[in-house]
Amino acid sequence: MSRQPSTLVTNIGELTTWDPERPSTEGAAFVIEDGKVAWTGPAVQAPAADTAYDVGGRAVIPGFVDSHSHLVFAGDRAEEFTARMAGQPYAAGGIRTTVRATRAASDEQLTSHVANLVQEMRRQGTTTLEIKSGYGLTVADEARSLAVAGQFTEDTTFLGAHVVPEGVTPEEYVDQVTGPMLEAAAPHAKWIDVFCETGAFDADQARVVLSAGIGRGLKPRMHANQLGAGPGVRLACELGLVAVDHCTYLSDDDITALRDSGTIATLLPGVEFSTKHPFPDGRALLEADVSIAIATDCNPGSCFTSSMPFCIALAVREMGLTPTEALAAATRGGAAALARDDVGSLLPGKRADFAVLDAPNHLHLAYRPGVPLVQETWVGGRRT
Amino acid sequence: MSRQPSTLVTNIGELTTWDPERPSTEGAAFVIEDGKVAWTGPAVQAPAADTAYDVGGRAVIPGFVDSHSHLVFAGDRAEEFTARMAGQPYAAGGIRTTVRATRAASDEQLTSHVANLVQEMRRQGTTTLEIKSGYGLTVADEARSLAVAGQFTEDTTFLGAHVVPEGVTPEEYVDQVTGPMLEAAAPHAKWIDVFCETGAFDADQARVVLSAGIGRGLKPRMHANQLGAGPGVRLACELGLVAVDHCTYLSDDDITALRDSGTIATLLPGVEFSTKHPFPDGRALLEADVSIAIATDCNPGSCFTSSMPFCIALAVREMGLTPTEALAAATRGGAAALARDDVGSLLPGKRADFAVLDAPNHLHLAYRPGVPLVQETWVGGRRT
Repeated sequence: MSRQPSTLVTNIGELTTWDPERPSTEGAAFVIEDGKVAWTGPAVQAPAADTAYDVGGRAVIPGFVDSHSHLVFAGDRAEEFTARMAGQPYAAGGIRTTVRATRAASDEQLTSHVANLVQEMRRQGTTTLEIKSGYGLTVADEARSLAVAGQFTEDTTFLGAHVVPEGVTPEEYVDQVTGPMLEAAAPHAKWIDVFCETGAFDADQARVVLSAGIGRGLKPRMHANQLGAGPGVRLACELGLVAVDHCTYLSDDDITALRDSGTIATLLPGVEFSTKHPFPDGRALLEADVSIAIATDCNPGSCFTSSMPFCIALAVREMGLTPTEALAAATRGGAAALARDDVGSLLPGKRADFAVLDAPNHLHLAYRPGVPLVQETWVGGRRT
Repeated sequence: MSRQPSTLVTNIGELTTWDPERPSTEGAAFVIEDGKVAWTGPAVQAPAADTAYDVGGRAVIPGFVDSHSHLVFAGDRAEEFTARMAGQPYAAGGIRTTVRATRAASDEQLTSHVANLVQEMRRQGTTTLEIKSGYGLTVADEARSLAVAGQFTEDTTFLGAHVVPEGVTPEEYVDQVTGPMLEAAAPHAKWIDVFCETGAFDADQARVVLSAGIGRGLKPRMHANQLGAGPGVRLACELGLVAVDHCTYLSDDDITALRDSGTIATLLPGVEFSTKHPFPDGRALLEADVSIAIATDCNPGSCFTSSMPFCIALAVREMGLTPTEALAAATRGGAAALARDDVGSLLPGKRADFAVLDAPNHLHLAYRPGVPLVQETWVGGRRT
């Protein structure tokens, strides 16, 4: 393959690379070559490149890495959301409403719906995302959900163990998930996930599900401690998972376990916003030396935002993070939570995935909540 | 002037008109003629029109009426915002930082900055907006701020009484505001406003400022009870103001006064989000038969959002409003707060100002927080 022309990105108001010495700097530039970052540094020292691209004094940040989404579904639950805002509590069982709609949808409908949501995310600066199954809950529907997801990301996650569907006992269902459903799903999935929560799966069931997935070559991750305290986070740490997601209700023991295991706590602030659960204390996690990520959890039930900037604004307002910490959690944090070392920063060698903000610096992501600040999104060195 | 071609807007997923009989309906259509709504009703009964415009099953809502913004300024206060999120309280005195930057800016810089923000608002569905002065605080700088604002809206507001600038006593400054500054500002302003708050102006000063403005032909409005309890809201009601803005800290007596006077309480939820003050209880206001509006308060200090959809999502999450009530407050509520009867709804005779949402219904404005759902904005029957 012939070498692509290199591009020097110039006139950057503030460049965030996550270089440990200079995480965000003014007066910086970078060079894209063959879809990757080839050089970053002071603009005045920039090497020659085939073309130059002037971003007009705007800020450039690494593209968002959204490590938790459930985009393969049909229908919506706007009425359930409205009732919840009026006082109805969120319950995991609502997932079954979406399961019925998803099973009834054609492959084309599901694919088109995911494509629309991925496009919506791209416009908001997301350059890498994970997509879960979990609204099929039959062998065929989980496999096709993952096949659809696989058209949009390499980070596909088998979440047959989302909730126990109607008409089957929990024991029977775990047997299905770890047997024929896993067999059908595994060729399409990189990860296996389980919703360890009252109303979904208990710790013993979660352990069985994850063990089966590991045995089939999948990498384990978990939903835990979303709706209340529970054993999920400690199980995730015991199993040495790369990340455990939600972490809304954490005990001191949970925090200690996260620190000791190095398991990343993936915070999903849109969920607390949309379910009225209390926001977890992100500041306390950082002070306890727990690594964190931020993701959207985009799904039709507990949180239908696709906006990483919105999640950053919430993490700053509600979780005690600084704008810089929140951006780090939404980029390199998400990459770490997906065990990806090719994305999440703009250091040399990384994929040239970035967003140009209509703002002079990254603080505006929190300072200007709700405003669509992402002006351009580039993936692999190409504007999308 | 020759008649413009009429347009039938069709294939609307849900049309919100604020018709008392059918506020939001499926299967509806409407006709635009000469920039106004000429007809609304069931699509199957639609009259002939010169052209048809298919919105692809999307929802159509009245354009947002943002009745409170401070767009004429220079500089930003992202660092102050970041410090506030880390625990520093908001104080009205921060306004002076923006005053220094605004005075130093050229007319062209101010105009270009307002144009960018107005364009940003348009993209988010705002079709009518009010713009205040208040970062000049000299005779010349207030007059030019209003002249700039007047290029973008007929609802310009003289807010010389925003805060007492450096180097002058409050008494001297009120004399300036009600004397030469009012004389210079009045030709460019429709409204007069005062920030009645500890750290800004007390009730006696507010009364003097508003009386002077009324005497000069301006219509009075007020900022009150933003940072704490105070006499501002009751003064607004006593004076029979059309609207009083912020209303963050309301006593039972304040609520009774609002109900009895019919003064609209304009809620600015982005301010509470960005200053960490408690959100006022919008539900309690509606239950007390107080009329409400929702606006952004877009400004560089206490709230730098320009997003009416974000404010709606906050009003639903934090103020106890239903999505429908919040949308009403952000459209016809804003129109009422500006004493405008030509905008705010899509009833026949109103200006054809509307937004097409990339969503099947208006509930998604709250259900999908942070997502830029506005696909098209039309003003006076023309797509912008």
